[in-house]
Amino acid sequence: MSAHPTSGLDEVVHQRHRLGILTIAVESKRVEFGYLRTTLNLTAGNLSRHIAVLEEAGLITVEKGYEGKRPRTWISITPRGRDALAEEIAALSAIVDSLGSRDRT
Amino acid sequence: MSAHPTSGLDEVVHQRHRLGILTIAVESKRVEFGYLRTTLNLTAGNLSRHIAVLEEAGLITVEKGYEGKRPRTWISITPRGRDALAEEIAALSAIVDSLGSRDRT
Repeated sequence: MSAHPTSGLDEVVHQRHRLGILTIAVESKRVEFGYLRTTLNLTAGNLSRHIAVLEEAGLITVEKGYEGKRPRTWISITPRGRDALAEEIAALSAIVDSLGSRDRT
Repeated sequence: MSAHPTSGLDEVVHQRHRLGILTIAVESKRVEFGYLRTTLNLTAGNLSRHIAVLEEAGLITVEKGYEGKRPRTWISITPRGRDALAEEIAALSAIVDSLGSRDRT
């Protein structure tokens, strides 16, 4: 019996805020901390915690710098992050398709 | 700026094992604890904890009984559970579609 699609999900990626961070980061070369914070409607502390988990897992890199005189933090997805997100999306598609194809009367 | 699809996710439903429980339960009138445990590859303790969270949130009901002399536990999804799962699947579809439509070179 093949494993259920949810058993293959990686909690590091699947957790909803981390999934949000990765789905935004994959869209561009790098993304700025403040943009992530407002788009995902998170506190700076909460966002920092999730970024630390993703960085620890090697799925993103974190770059610190300045824009003019203002300190800035950017994150970029890594190749491993792209692969992990692709696996997550494949599993989510399988879940969505399995429910979509069912005739829900 | 519309909220990111992941911000609408409900952690009670989105957590991968609970999502697994609901996607199986929605397929039938009721589903037996042992079947869930093997299909989702969970320990009885872990499964019980997630069932308690879903029951507490009113997304499933739990029924205890016997099959012959053997004690059995069945869970059934509630109308609120069906709605919550439908919202989760809609959000997951939006995430999958948004990444699918992107030209990922």
